Amino acid sequence: MSGSNFGKAFQITTYGESHGKAIGVVIQGCPPGIDIDETVLQTALDKRKPGQGVSGTKRKEPDHPNIVSGTFEGKTTGTPLMILIENKDAKSKSYDSIAFVFRPGHGDYTYDAKYGIRDYKGGGRASARETAARVAAGAVAQLILDQNRITIESHTLEIGGICAEKGIKESIQNDLECPDNAAAKRMQEKILAVKALGDSLGGIVEITASNVPAGLGEPVFDKLDADIAKALMSIGAVKAVEIGAGIDAPKMTGYENNDQILTNGFETNHSGGILAGISNGDDIIARVHVKPIPSISKPQNTIDKHGTAQTISTEGRHDICAIPRINKVCEAMMAIVLTDHLLRQKMVR
Amino acid sequence: MSGSNFGKAFQITTYGESHGKAIGVVIQGCPPGIDIDETVLQTALDKRKPGQGVSGTKRKEPDHPNIVSGTFEGKTTGTPLMILIENKDAKSKSYDSIAFVFRPGHGDYTYDAKYGIRDYKGGGRASARETAARVAAGAVAQLILDQNRITIESHTLEIGGICAEKGIKESIQNDLECPDNAAAKRMQEKILAVKALGDSLGGIVEITASNVPAGLGEPVFDKLDADIAKALMSIGAVKAVEIGAGIDAPKMTGYENNDQILTNGFETNHSGGILAGISNGDDIIARVHVKPIPSISKPQNTIDKHGTAQTISTEGRHDICAIPRINKVCEAMMAIVLTDHLLRQKMVR
Amino acid sequence: MSGSNFGKAFQITTYGESHGKAIGVVIQGCPPGIDIDETVLQTALDKRKPGQGVSGTKRKEPDHPNIVSGTFEGKTTGTPLMILIENKDAKSKSYDSIAFVFRPGHGDYTYDAKYGIRDYKGGGRASARETAARVAAGAVAQLILDQNRITIESHTLEIGGICAEKGIKESIQNDLECPDNAAAKRMQEKILAVKALGDSLGGIVEITASNVPAGLGEPVFDKLDADIAKALMSIGAVKAVEIGAGIDAPKMTGYENNDQILTNGFETNHSGGILAGISNGDDIIARVHVKPIPSISKPQNTIDKHGTAQTISTEGRHDICAIPRINKVCEAMMAIVLTDHLLRQKMVR
Amino acid sequence: MSGSNFGKAFQITTYGESHGKAIGVVIQGCPPGIDIDETVLQTALDKRKPGQGVSGTKRKEPDHPNIVSGTFEGKTTGTPLMILIENKDAKSKSYDSIAFVFRPGHGDYTYDAKYGIRDYKGGGRASARETAARVAAGAVAQLILDQNRITIESHTLEIGGICAEKGIKESIQNDLECPDNAAAKRMQEKILAVKALGDSLGGIVEITASNVPAGLGEPVFDKLDADIAKALMSIGAVKAVEIGAGIDAPKMTGYENNDQILTNGFETNHSGGILAGISNGDDIIARVHVKPIPSISKPQNTIDKHGTAQTISTEGRHDICAIPRINKVCEAMMAIVLTDHLLRQKMVR
Repeated sequence: MSGSNFGKAFQITTYGESHGKAIGVVIQGCPPGIDIDETVLQTALDKRKPGQGVSGTKRKEPDHPNIVSGTFEGKTTGTPLMILIENKDAKSKSYDSIAFVFRPGHGDYTYDAKYGIRDYKGGGRASARETAARVAAGAVAQLILDQNRITIESHTLEIGGICAEKGIKESIQNDLECPDNAAAKRMQEKILAVKALGDSLGGIVEITASNVPAGLGEPVFDKLDADIAKALMSIGAVKAVEIGAGIDAPKMTGYENNDQILTNGFETNHSGGILAGISNGDDIIARVHVKPIPSISKPQNTIDKHGTAQTISTEGRHDICAIPRINKVCEAMMAIVLTDHLLRQKMVR
Repeated sequence: MSGSNFGKAFQITTYGESHGKAIGVVIQGCPPGIDIDETVLQTALDKRKPGQGVSGTKRKEPDHPNIVSGTFEGKTTGTPLMILIENKDAKSKSYDSIAFVFRPGHGDYTYDAKYGIRDYKGGGRASARETAARVAAGAVAQLILDQNRITIESHTLEIGGICAEKGIKESIQNDLECPDNAAAKRMQEKILAVKALGDSLGGIVEITASNVPAGLGEPVFDKLDADIAKALMSIGAVKAVEIGAGIDAPKMTGYENNDQILTNGFETNHSGGILAGISNGDDIIARVHVKPIPSISKPQNTIDKHGTAQTISTEGRHDICAIPRINKVCEAMMAIVLTDHLLRQKMVR
Repeated sequence: MSGSNFGKAFQITTYGESHGKAIGVVIQGCPPGIDIDETVLQTALDKRKPGQGVSGTKRKEPDHPNIVSGTFEGKTTGTPLMILIENKDAKSKSYDSIAFVFRPGHGDYTYDAKYGIRDYKGGGRASARETAARVAAGAVAQLILDQNRITIESHTLEIGGICAEKGIKESIQNDLECPDNAAAKRMQEKILAVKALGDSLGGIVEITASNVPAGLGEPVFDKLDADIAKALMSIGAVKAVEIGAGIDAPKMTGYENNDQILTNGFETNHSGGILAGISNGDDIIARVHVKPIPSISKPQNTIDKHGTAQTISTEGRHDICAIPRINKVCEAMMAIVLTDHLLRQKMVR
Repeated sequence: MSGSNFGKAFQITTYGESHGKAIGVVIQGCPPGIDIDETVLQTALDKRKPGQGVSGTKRKEPDHPNIVSGTFEGKTTGTPLMILIENKDAKSKSYDSIAFVFRPGHGDYTYDAKYGIRDYKGGGRASARETAARVAAGAVAQLILDQNRITIESHTLEIGGICAEKGIKESIQNDLECPDNAAAKRMQEKILAVKALGDSLGGIVEITASNVPAGLGEPVFDKLDADIAKALMSIGAVKAVEIGAGIDAPKMTGYENNDQILTNGFETNHSGGILAGISNGDDIIARVHVKPIPSISKPQNTIDKHGTAQTISTEGRHDICAIPRINKVCEAMMAIVLTDHLLRQKMVR
C-alpha cells in the first residue's frame, strides 16, 4: 500500500534501498515557478553527509542529487519533481555475513516477518540511507518556506546522558550542533570512549520552526502536532517525540502550563506553538529522543533465519551516534510537514 | 481537506461539535460478517463517561451510540458503519461569556486564526467530547482485534508528578487505573488539593497491546510507531509520545538498549515491540504525556477577539485531570491503528 | 477500504442503506463562512424526489436533510459537515421475496459474492436512494461554485431511443427536462407504453458547466475529465460517459476535431472545455448513457442463493426510467468534482 | 497535490516530461516474492513502441526500463518499485517554434493557464510519452494478474469511421490489432490517404479482461466501472468510455438489457461483467473512443502567449492515429485497476 507516501498537499514518495542502484523521491504539489537547481539540494545533502566529525562513520557517500523531472529552465513547473541519488560507495560484500542472521535492534527480523524476503545489503530499505531522499525533499520544501520567511533549525540537547545546560545558547563551536560548547566537549569525549568499547550512543535533538503563521494544522487527526509526531517518529532511531513542554507538561498544574495571553502575545510557549492542533504563531518546538545506533562491534546474542542461536558483531562502517546527522533529517521532516499545511491552509482562507 | 479521516484500510471519519446536534463517526473498511450491536459500543463509551471518580466533572453525558448504517441483522455488511451519538446535556448558556474571549491553553485563538469563525460553545469541534466518536470506533476495531486475540490495556503511571512505582502491577483498587494502589491514593489526594485551588493536573498513561503478530507496519512513513505517534498525539491533551524505552533510550548504550534475540524470543523489550517500524511479536508499548486540563477557575490573563486584555476564570463543569478518561481514548486509537495495519498486512502476505 | 470517499480537497463520505435508519454524507474541506441552511439542501433534494411525472415511482420519500454538524449560526465553520436524511417510507416487507433470489441487472449477486452477506431490503447500499446523499453534498458544493459564478445544468437528450433534435434548445415545458418539447411528448408516450408492458427504459443526459475558469484539473491521473468520468460512472445506471465530442470524435479528422483558437476564444468546443485534463475556460460538457431500470415486472430467469433456477417479477414501487431523477445526481457529481478542483487550484497559484 | 498517483492498494506514481532526462514510475503495494526482470517490462514497452506500422511516427524511442529499486535477486521485495526510462531520442530543437504558440487540441494553453509556466518541449508532461510509464507499471500489474490467471487483451473496432464488422473475430493479420482483417485493410488505406492530406484520425478500442473473479470493486465511489472509467479517461486522447453495452444500453428496454441468470451463468453480458460496481465473474468489457491526433501539418488558426493570431502547422514527427499504440496503454490501465481491486478484496474476505 502507500506507506512510502507522506503529506497530502505537498506529497513525497520515496523509493530505494541502501545498496540498490539509487534512492530518491517524487515530490507532488510543489508550486510552479520556484527557482531550483541541484546546488541547493547538494548543500542540504552535504550537511547530512557521513564521514564527518567524531560521531560519524568513515564511509564516503557522494550523494549527488539529480533532478530528473518537474523543472524547466531552472524553475519548478508544478509537475512531479523526481530527485534521484545514485548509490556509489556500496560495498556489498561486507554484508554477506548478515544475510541470514538477524541484527539486534535492526529491522532484519521484522522485514523478514512482514515480507518473507529481504534485501539484507546495508539494511536495504530500512537503512538510514533512505533519509537522504527526505533531506532532498526537505530542501525543496524549505524553498517554499523561504518565500514565507519560515526558518527551521535544530540543536543537540543531549548525547549519551550528557546534557547541554538549559538556556545556554552559545554560538556553536563544535561538530555536534550543540549550543553548549562545554557540554559538547564532554559529549565528544564520551563518544570516543564508547567507540573504543565497540558500543554506541543516543541523544536528544530539538527542532524549532520560527515565523510560522497562526492557522496551520487540520483537526482532528491531521493536527499539526500529530503530523509532526508521525513525521519525526518515522525516522528510524527516534523513540519519543515531544511538543513544547512535552514530558515536563505533566509535572505542571494547569495554571503553570497554560500560556497566558497578553496583548503582545503569549507569555510563555509551553504549547510549543500549537494549540488544539493548530499553530498559534509562536515558535514550533519539537524534541526527539534518539536511541543509540544498534550496529555495534561488541558481540551480541541473536538467532539466524532457522532459529539457531548465533553471536553477532557488526563490523561494517557505522556511526557511533545518529546525532548530528539525524538533525538534518528532523529539519527536513519538519519542513515537509509545515509546507504541506501551508498549502492546505490556502484552501481554507 | 481530509483532516478528520484516520487510517487507510480501516478508515474512520469523525464529525460533530460539543454542543451541536450530535457527534459521530463513519467507519470504512470494517470486514463483513462481524457480530455487532450497540451494547458493545455502549460498554466502551460508559468507561469513558464523565462524572465518575475524583478527577472527573459532574456533567452527565448520556452517550448513547446509535448504529445508523452498515449492519444487517446484527452483523456488519462491509459497507460504511455510521455511529451517531446525540448531544443531550449541552448547557450552551454557560459558554456565552467566552464567545469572544480566548481561553489560555485551548484552541479558541487558533481556530479563529485558521477559520475566521468558531463554534465557541463547549469548545466546538476542539472539545474532548469529539473523542467519544473515537472510542466508539475503537470498540468496533477491537471486535476485529478480538478475532485475532489481540488485547489492549492502559495504565496510569503518573498524575501531578506522583509516580506509580516501576514494576508494581497490583490488581487495580482505585478509580485512576493505576497499578500501584498506594500511589493512586496519593494521586487522588493531590487531585482534591489542586481542585480546591481551582487548578488542574496532568499525568502519564501507558498503553500496551499484547499478542500482536510480527509484520504489522508499512515503512517508511506508515511505520507502526509513526502511526501510533500520530494517533496518540492527535488526542487533545497529549504533549509527548514514547515507544518502548522511549525517553530512556538515549540514556543507554547500544549494547544496553538493543533487545538481544534468544532462541525463545527477544531478551528485553526496549523496542516496544516495533523494529524498523514493523511489529516484532512482542508487546507494543506506548506512553503518552498528558498536559493538565487547561480549563481552570483560577483567574488567568488573556485577550478578547479585539485584542483587548481580559481576565478569565473558566467556571464550566470540567475535569481536573484528563486521566483516566483519556486512557480509553488512547486504547481506542491504538486499536484503530492496529486494525488498520492488520488489514493492510493481508495484502502483503 | 475507503470506497465511499470521493474527492481530495472537497471530500465527501457517504453512508447508509435504502431501508436502514438513515442515509447521509460527511463533507470535509468546505471552506468556512458560507451561508447555509437546510432550505437550500431541501430544494435540491426535492428536485430529485420520486413520485413526480410519468417516469417516476409512486413512492414518497420525504427526504428531510438534517445538518448535524459543521455549521454555527447559519454559516459553515470549516469543520466536517454531516448531513443526515432519515429513511421514513421504507416498506421492508415488500422485499422479503428477494432475500435469496438475485434480481437480474442489480447488485444482488455481486454484493453476495463480494461480502458474503447483504442487506437485501430495497437494494441496501446499492440502492439509488444513496444518491440523495450525493445530491445534498452537491448542493453544498454548488454554494461554493455560486461564489465563483459557476453554473451547472443538465438536459435529457434521449429516452428509449427517442432523441431530442440536435440544436433545439426550447424553454422546457415538460417533466423530462428535455429541451425539445415535441420529442419529450413522444418520450412520455413511449414511457407509458413500456410501463404497460411491465418493462423499462434508459436514455442520455447531457451535463453542462458554464463559467468554469481555465486551469482546473490535475494531470496525469486526476485530470478533470478523468475525475468527471469516475464521478458519473459511479452513478448506478450509467454505462458510458462522454466528454465534449465524445463518441463523435473518432468520426472526425484531426483538423475537424481540433478546436482552433481565435483571438476571442476557441472556435468550437469539441474538447468539452477540457484539454490535456485541464479546463480551458469553455463550457464543460459531459454526457451519460443510462441503462434502463433493471427492476421490471415482466418475468425474468434468475437463480437463488443456492443456484436453483427461479423466475422473478419485481413488483416493488419502481421508476420506469432513471431520467430525469438521475439528472440531478449528475449535476451534483459535476458540482462536487468542480469544487474539488477549484479548491485544489488554490494551492497551485 | 497528488494528481500523479493512481490506485489505493496498488498505487502508481508517475513522473517525467517528454524531453526531460527521463520518465518513470514508483509502484507501491506490489506484493513481495514475485519474479521480475527488465525483460518482461521491455516486452511490454516494445509493443507500445512508435515507429511501427502505417499509423505510427518514424521516431525511435528506445524505451529501456531500468528497475531502480524494490527487487532483490530477481524478486520483488514488497518495497517501492521504481522504474526509470531515459529519454534518448529527444530532438528539442524541433519544438522551439511552439514555445509561445498554443497548438490546437493540445494542453499548451491549459498548462499555461494552470501553472503559468510550461515545459513546451514535446508537450512536456502532457506528452503521450508519459504513457510509457503506465505501460511499465501495467506489466508489473499483469504479473500479479497472471498468478490469478486473469488475462487482458484489446482490439481495434474502428479507425476513421471504418468499423470492424461486429462479431468477426479473425486471427489478426494486420498492424492495427483489428479482428476484421478486411476492415483493417480499409483502415490502413484511409490512414495513408489522410496522412497525405496532413491530417489525422481517431477510432475505437475495446479492452477485455477475462477470468476476473466476482467480487472486485468498492461501492459506492470506487466501483470497478468508475475506476476503469477514470483510468481510461485519464489517457490523453480518450473522449468517451463505455462499459458493456455502453452507448447501446439506452436503446434497449430493461428486459432486453438485463442479463438474465441461468444456472450455468449469465445469459448475456450487457453489464460488461460489472453489476452495481462489482465484478460478476463475466468478462470485463470496456471501450474507449479516441480522438484524432491533434498534431497535424495542415495549417490551423491559433494564438500565441500574447493573444496574437497565428497560423500553426505542426511539423514534428507524429503518429497519424493513436491506435494501435494506445491499445497497450488501455490494457495497462485495466491491469492496474484490476490489480488494485484484487488486493483490496483481500481485506474484505
